[in-house]
Amino acid sequence: MDVTRRDVIELCIAGALVAAAGVAHFVDATPVLAFALAALAIALLARLVGGATDQLGSRVGSSIAGVIQSALGNLPELFIALFALREGLTRVVQSALVGSVIANSVLVLGIAFVAGGVRHGTQTFDSPRARMIATLTTLAAAILAVPTLAHAFHAPAAGHAKALSLICAGVLLALFFLTLPGFLAGGEEAAPEPARWTLATTVAVLGSAGVGAAFVSDWFVTALRPATATLGMSEAFAGLVVVAIAGNAVENVVGVQLAARNRPDFAISVIVNSALQIALVLTPVLVFASLFFATNLTLVFPTLLAISLLLAAGITALVVYDGESTWEEGAILIGFYAVVAASFWWGA
Amino acid sequence: MDVTRRDVIELCIAGALVAAAGVAHFVDATPVLAFALAALAIALLARLVGGATDQLGSRVGSSIAGVIQSALGNLPELFIALFALREGLTRVVQSALVGSVIANSVLVLGIAFVAGGVRHGTQTFDSPRARMIATLTTLAAAILAVPTLAHAFHAPAAGHAKALSLICAGVLLALFFLTLPGFLAGGEEAAPEPARWTLATTVAVLGSAGVGAAFVSDWFVTALRPATATLGMSEAFAGLVVVAIAGNAVENVVGVQLAARNRPDFAISVIVNSALQIALVLTPVLVFASLFFATNLTLVFPTLLAISLLLAAGITALVVYDGESTWEEGAILIGFYAVVAASFWWGA
Amino acid sequence: MDVTRRDVIELCIAGALVAAAGVAHFVDATPVLAFALAALAIALLARLVGGATDQLGSRVGSSIAGVIQSALGNLPELFIALFALREGLTRVVQSALVGSVIANSVLVLGIAFVAGGVRHGTQTFDSPRARMIATLTTLAAAILAVPTLAHAFHAPAAGHAKALSLICAGVLLALFFLTLPGFLAGGEEAAPEPARWTLATTVAVLGSAGVGAAFVSDWFVTALRPATATLGMSEAFAGLVVVAIAGNAVENVVGVQLAARNRPDFAISVIVNSALQIALVLTPVLVFASLFFATNLTLVFPTLLAISLLLAAGITALVVYDGESTWEEGAILIGFYAVVAASFWWGA
Repeated sequence: MDVTRRDVIELCIAGALVAAAGVAHFVDATPVLAFALAALAIALLARLVGGATDQLGSRVGSSIAGVIQSALGNLPELFIALFALREGLTRVVQSALVGSVIANSVLVLGIAFVAGGVRHGTQTFDSPRARMIATLTTLAAAILAVPTLAHAFHAPAAGHAKALSLICAGVLLALFFLTLPGFLAGGEEAAPEPARWTLATTVAVLGSAGVGAAFVSDWFVTALRPATATLGMSEAFAGLVVVAIAGNAVENVVGVQLAARNRPDFAISVIVNSALQIALVLTPVLVFASLFFATNLTLVFPTLLAISLLLAAGITALVVYDGESTWEEGAILIGFYAVVAASFWWGA
Repeated sequence: MDVTRRDVIELCIAGALVAAAGVAHFVDATPVLAFALAALAIALLARLVGGATDQLGSRVGSSIAGVIQSALGNLPELFIALFALREGLTRVVQSALVGSVIANSVLVLGIAFVAGGVRHGTQTFDSPRARMIATLTTLAAAILAVPTLAHAFHAPAAGHAKALSLICAGVLLALFFLTLPGFLAGGEEAAPEPARWTLATTVAVLGSAGVGAAFVSDWFVTALRPATATLGMSEAFAGLVVVAIAGNAVENVVGVQLAARNRPDFAISVIVNSALQIALVLTPVLVFASLFFATNLTLVFPTLLAISLLLAAGITALVVYDGESTWEEGAILIGFYAVVAASFWWGA
Repeated sequence: MDVTRRDVIELCIAGALVAAAGVAHFVDATPVLAFALAALAIALLARLVGGATDQLGSRVGSSIAGVIQSALGNLPELFIALFALREGLTRVVQSALVGSVIANSVLVLGIAFVAGGVRHGTQTFDSPRARMIATLTTLAAAILAVPTLAHAFHAPAAGHAKALSLICAGVLLALFFLTLPGFLAGGEEAAPEPARWTLATTVAVLGSAGVGAAFVSDWFVTALRPATATLGMSEAFAGLVVVAIAGNAVENVVGVQLAARNRPDFAISVIVNSALQIALVLTPVLVFASLFFATNLTLVFPTLLAISLLLAAGITALVVYDGESTWEEGAILIGFYAVVAASFWWGA
């Protein structure tokens, strides 16, 4: 079984959406329409990139799969972030990064609990790997929150946002390179399915989805400022919710499917691991990359963003340690996400 | 066995206290005496209402018991809150609501651990239901804290206290209606004792205790402001400690008794569930009810109140997940409550 | 086997370092050198005091061992704190106390996880005692953080730092005296090795190390202000990192050795218990002792210090409840400590 009918449909829809987003961009459609089309196109491209990365991963043996996945899996967010940094939209990038962690570890996890709970009742999970990933994610989130807390609550550190951000980013990146081997070894448990696509198909999909993501990200960022202004939505909300969900959460629909198929341990690993990668890889990489831009990205977030990150991380640890999930628990997770998102609606 | 000797004694004491509180109110006794008598009367009425509600619950089958308990069990707090809102004492209402959650999940739980630990040494508990209730309570507390955190730490949201409070209250109430069925189904585990009272007795006790609670609440709120001024106690302390303990915690003496009888799982469920109901039902109901008053109730609490709520919720999750309790753990819980309460003693 | 060759070597090195620190003090060496030598000497003296206290403990039966250990084991920190209070360096004392809790429960624990994980792979632990100590430490840390949170986030309490600190210290000390018997009884599990040293040796080592610690602490505090000024290091950093590691963490190398010998439960108990004793005994004792000094010690810390304490306590609970440790988890703990420490580098 190579490329299935479903794959083809997905590819066609993604292609159509990219085309529509491009038309909206070049004919100067209303910014809200251009923004919405670009967001949808990114969501589907992120899913294609994620799928193709997994295919590539199953092909190369697990020792490199993790590296590939970390490097390529977050490609769409990376493009959006780079274009946004070029435009000086650091607030959008910050909230998109934190938002991706929160969206995965709270919203997607909540949806997975609901999907699993509605079909299978109370689901129990007891995999040490799921628990370990939740622990590491919570720790990484705590590290990520420190520069903001220092800035907000410790006057002497307030003038050193850049230095502290670089130290923090350096620690996170060092932790990523240190812990990578352990993860790859431990990943057996979550053995990937055998490759379905041929190498040529995989590379072609990855390449074209990647190129598509680069273009659409540019259009998305162009439309972002006028669209959010029209909608009355703050830039923080655009990053926290729209970018995070389009660039990351939709891709994690696979985690929800795993929960629906009554594999809660695996579902949690996949979903929370995605949050961990953003904290441990994408965020510090962007901090260092931003040194080449006019506006540097610091890890001094809006204070509420860091507090929300800490709350989300604590909650994730809680519901994973708890050892069982129900759809009620999932509903409360979604409720928490909704209230946090609402708090960021208003702009300065 | 219908009404026992002990029931009669409790009813008589409650009646005497209500009478005394009434006399103190109408003869213009010193506010402190009127306040103290009203607080004692409310504590006993709350216990009677709680007992009668349980009796009614065992009569109607568990599918409606939960609804009745949520609706009627918090009647005394509801009356106090409504009278206080009429007087514009929103600070008292806010701290009474948060205080009820903290008092149950920290103080009463601590007393239960001490009562259980002194008699039975280390008590272990491993009921999924107790753990699930602790998880849900922590999540609900996190949701409840978000508007305050947004107000305090996110300038753009600061001007939208009312909108954010209504969103938050709506989410909490939606979660209550969504999760209710699951709770009722799951409640079998904590099967209630068979009804002891006849239906007539139950309705009579519930009715008279309810009417009594309405009157006494009025007198309590009337005496509150002059009494707290005399005592040098802040309104926040009056709500957090006096109203919370009188209106809610005393009622939960049943949880302490369960721990003393070496049924720690059931004790924890009862105590923490009480905190959950306040967060999920009473609080949002009052937010919406306050729209009909001159002064609206928002969920923007004093910042320390929201932080204390989060700490208390985290601590509750911790001691419940821990899987065993000792009286030392109970003592530290009580110590935490004491220090938090002391922080609110001073008024503005 | 009485005094081993290794003991003799340790004693000689400690003696030499004390002598070197003394020379540096009296010949007016550069402050940085005097500071560094005194810090090293304190680290070794703290280790000797710790060792001798354990020897004394194994001699007297566990019912008094705990008291002795709590009273004498923290002697070096006590001396440093008293000399620092005499000089009015309350900021150093505050950050040294909180720093000792954080250094033990995060840094030393992280090193222990790395040491254990590198040699033995994933280590599992499931001792109720380790979990209980983690719970109590988290609760004690929460209590300790309340006065700071009240000061920072509750305007009415801000003027009552001293009263609130005394209440908090009183509660902590009461909890210590209440919980002590239970701990002593429960300590069997972690049965100490039989006494190796004769009583005479033990008393001689304890006495001379104690006297040495008193002198060196004085020299350390004298050099602290000029040395930190030269190094550009804040007083908070000096307390949080230098004093905490020299006066406390090095002593806990025994916990790291236990983890390396694949006894993770015992390692965690020893390390986290050390943090608990500082919160429950040393801190409140110093608050009351400071009443006899010109400058009183309050528990109103720099806000970030209290927040870091809460984060560290939560993280400790998390990694202990998690039930297994890997060296990756240890690495992230160390990373968290590094970022927190960096935040305090800059002075006012």
